Amino acid sequence: MSSIVDSYLAKRKELIEEDTSLRADRAKLRNLTPLEAKAEALVRQIRKHEAEEVFSFTLFLHEVPDVASNQIWSQKNESLEHPFPGMAFLTAKKTIESTRIFKIIKKMPKGALLHAHLEATVDARVLLDLALEHPNICIRSPCAIDASNMGNILPDFAPLPLAQLKELEASPSITSSYYNPGTYIPIHKARNEWPASLGNGFDDWVIRAIVINPTEAYGTHNTTVKIWDKFVSCFSVIRGLVAYEPVYRKYIRALFESCIEDGVSYAEIRMNFTPKTIVAADGAGAVDHSYFVGIFQDVVQEFKADLTAQGKGNLFHGAKLIYTVIRILSVEELKWYLDDCLELKKKFPDTLAAFDLVGPEDKMNPLIYYLEPLLEFSRTCEEQGVDLPFLFHAGETLGDGDSVDQNLYDAILLGTKRIGHAFSLVKHPALMRLCRERNICCEVCPVSNEILRLTSSMPAHPLAAMLNHGVPVALASDDPGIFSNIGISYDFFQVLVASEISGLMTLGVLARQSIEHALLGAESKAELLKVWDCQWTEYIEEILAEHTK
Amino acid sequence: MSSIVDSYLAKRKELIEEDTSLRADRAKLRNLTPLEAKAEALVRQIRKHEAEEVFSFTLFLHEVPDVASNQIWSQKNESLEHPFPGMAFLTAKKTIESTRIFKIIKKMPKGALLHAHLEATVDARVLLDLALEHPNICIRSPCAIDASNMGNILPDFAPLPLAQLKELEASPSITSSYYNPGTYIPIHKARNEWPASLGNGFDDWVIRAIVINPTEAYGTHNTTVKIWDKFVSCFSVIRGLVAYEPVYRKYIRALFESCIEDGVSYAEIRMNFTPKTIVAADGAGAVDHSYFVGIFQDVVQEFKADLTAQGKGNLFHGAKLIYTVIRILSVEELKWYLDDCLELKKKFPDTLAAFDLVGPEDKMNPLIYYLEPLLEFSRTCEEQGVDLPFLFHAGETLGDGDSVDQNLYDAILLGTKRIGHAFSLVKHPALMRLCRERNICCEVCPVSNEILRLTSSMPAHPLAAMLNHGVPVALASDDPGIFSNIGISYDFFQVLVASEISGLMTLGVLARQSIEHALLGAESKAELLKVWDCQWTEYIEEILAEHTK
Repeated sequence: MSSIVDSYLAKRKELIEEDTSLRADRAKLRNLTPLEAKAEALVRQIRKHEAEEVFSFTLFLHEVPDVASNQIWSQKNESLEHPFPGMAFLTAKKTIESTRIFKIIKKMPKGALLHAHLEATVDARVLLDLALEHPNICIRSPCAIDASNMGNILPDFAPLPLAQLKELEASPSITSSYYNPGTYIPIHKARNEWPASLGNGFDDWVIRAIVINPTEAYGTHNTTVKIWDKFVSCFSVIRGLVAYEPVYRKYIRALFESCIEDGVSYAEIRMNFTPKTIVAADGAGAVDHSYFVGIFQDVVQEFKADLTAQGKGNLFHGAKLIYTVIRILSVEELKWYLDDCLELKKKFPDTLAAFDLVGPEDKMNPLIYYLEPLLEFSRTCEEQGVDLPFLFHAGETLGDGDSVDQNLYDAILLGTKRIGHAFSLVKHPALMRLCRERNICCEVCPVSNEILRLTSSMPAHPLAAMLNHGVPVALASDDPGIFSNIGISYDFFQVLVASEISGLMTLGVLARQSIEHALLGAESKAELLKVWDCQWTEYIEEILAEHTK
Repeated sequence: MSSIVDSYLAKRKELIEEDTSLRADRAKLRNLTPLEAKAEALVRQIRKHEAEEVFSFTLFLHEVPDVASNQIWSQKNESLEHPFPGMAFLTAKKTIESTRIFKIIKKMPKGALLHAHLEATVDARVLLDLALEHPNICIRSPCAIDASNMGNILPDFAPLPLAQLKELEASPSITSSYYNPGTYIPIHKARNEWPASLGNGFDDWVIRAIVINPTEAYGTHNTTVKIWDKFVSCFSVIRGLVAYEPVYRKYIRALFESCIEDGVSYAEIRMNFTPKTIVAADGAGAVDHSYFVGIFQDVVQEFKADLTAQGKGNLFHGAKLIYTVIRILSVEELKWYLDDCLELKKKFPDTLAAFDLVGPEDKMNPLIYYLEPLLEFSRTCEEQGVDLPFLFHAGETLGDGDSVDQNLYDAILLGTKRIGHAFSLVKHPALMRLCRERNICCEVCPVSNEILRLTSSMPAHPLAAMLNHGVPVALASDDPGIFSNIGISYDFFQVLVASEISGLMTLGVLARQSIEHALLGAESKAELLKVWDCQWTEYIEEILAEHTK
């Protein structure tokens, strides 16, 4: 019998190896340095411990000769409501922050942030503080705000010329029963006169309108459609604060600060170019797209220069903009924006990186709706020798064969370099093969997908299937200012604790891969990879030193 | 430009065809009769209409030349809480029953029920009524039941010898403050003396302990681990009522009646053989496994004979038993059961069909734990020329690389003919290929998976990926007595409304496929397929006549 068992176990090992052979981490796992091997084992051990102690799950290890990771979950006790590793992010956030695994991930060099929407990349508190530095930012409401309606009214901000402020200072505030509906009130006045009877104050009211809270995601808005309504409303509040030249300058810098604080050293940021202008510094004039891209480029250069002056140049390699418009435009309108994008690319070749369409895929136009102008754009770029690829959102859906799911066909056929989300990709055998063959990277945003109710928790997310099928992946935060997942550490955490196959090396491979899929020139990319490799080596030494005392 | 667009659309069509070429319904869709084509279109039209009217979703159709099903969801209004097609089953059940789609599915010939656990196949109300026909069934409680504790106490039933009843009739009932904890009280006494102050009555209390309600599945027990605790407790209550020879006889017949009522004409039923006996008719003696299989076989034959006498022989082809034990046994204990199973197979070659292990995969032993006896069993069967295959549960988990997920490797390497659930199969490229190549059918149980919290709703279920990857699938109800999904119609419904690729023909292909994967001899299977084909033709005519007046 024992020879039969041995031969069975040999076949089993072979099958598992074949089954996982497409994974991006396999090559790395065959070539670990002794320190990397030690760090990998350490992190698996801490993860197991914290699954038990923090998330109240016990991992039983069934000893099987030559077969690793053969483990069983079972529940132990309760501290959180419904605890398990990879559980609902907004409920678990504070608990996640308390773990050693999170602290280990936080320090990791993350490579590139490839999927984030500028308007939602900065913490809500930070954004509000930036806005408060500008007393000419005003707020209005469709009616006087009181305890009965405050939960349903969204703050409507706009910067006004300083000259108008004096008069507005004299009007009754938005919370006064004498408030004149629809009139602007200076933000500081509204804030100072916010009555104590209205709960936790003006700031709390504003921030609640910018971020999604657990009750909304898991209670009142618990479907993909409902939570998108809340999500879209957040953007409308943010825009009033941020679409103002001086705030934007500081906001972009705050984004870069949050990047380096989290170990992200390069970013490609999607910005919504649908509005043709933002408000100029004087509160009256308008600043156009070209001026705006110039601001972005200036802030990148200033930020890099400041870091270099401090001897920290390696922390930040730079950032580029991805031109996006909302997929509600008419075909004719889109043509204007595609021309605009091409002009900007010529003017800012190193800052403008790609083109994309955004907005709720399942409510707005599919890619095929814009087929002709998109094909035309590709041809024009080719003819003019301009390297301005598509980076389409596609498949951010639970649908099977609906328009959003079918966007994946068009994204790939239109030659997208990466795919935003690709949540439904695992349903498509031919498309997974094309992603592997053409090295099309999927920008997967775990926390975003969970809060937007595509998945109820991380263990139910298709990422594990994507990795096992060898689909190129980079992890990203999407809209961290709204989802409260600033940096990429929270997303990395959810991925690490929800799989027994993935480990620290997997995260390392994904981080490095994010650089490989960045839209950088060959030389620039090689330089960034070299820096990352050094950072990684130091990082492994550092966590071993810290956690194996 | 138009030639570029045309060539694009041709490539697109080709890619979609390639991407869906592995689906089991492709051959059928190329060879529809005119009536089938009409029925397919009709059902898609009703589904679209009901998505809007019943589930408050609007389907927008984007017209694309030569591309079908290019549709978009968006929300319209609210009647249910969080409504969408494929939403939480227990919340939507009554709504589902009100739809035309459900009525159409209900009448469909479903083929074989390949995955259901005997102890949980009959409606709780029906079971309780069967038990109430036997006054010697008694109930006990660890303490007197009152309003404060009734939600936490499980009814503990057992049949007793009639001779003991008189004395027990005189004792205070379980709801009396004089109740002597742990003593048995006749069921009718407990029922008659149930005080009005304890809510909806004795029957309601018992049924609540047998079925999972929406509050439990989606509120208090909303994790895979917690809901399993409730699920397991349901079985303990059921067992006290059903593990009694005369009840079991009627219970098995009730199961078959529910099968034909739902268009299921053949069943392979898993039974838990871990307990070595059930209680005999006199309430004192014990009936062993062999006697029990004899009862099952008798009921099958009686039921068939009765139907044949009524000229309805085609409605029911028969049923077989799958021998299952709980995967908590020691290796030594398992050997006893494997021997027992083999002996029973020799005695009842046409009724005993296969062997399986059951119980929460993530808390109990993985298949590899029993490797030696399972390999030994296969060898013995082969040596003795006995056809007694494995039909293992495997991969009923959200885990990635844990023991439960790895059960898939062992199920396949041990030669399983079908896989129970295979929920995590889509994570495994090599295993999906093996399932295709070896024609291993996955018994997918959509409602079960959703209630047991592996998926939050049907659109998030991996079934769509399994179908697109060409994995052989049969749909089943698992534990309909506990999940309230009697028949397979509810499961078929959830599948149909959660995909734009699948249609009525897909369900027909899955139903026919369930017969092809049944453990029937070649002749018997051919006969059943022939009957199904006739029923299908009649069915198509019938629904067209009924819905196109």
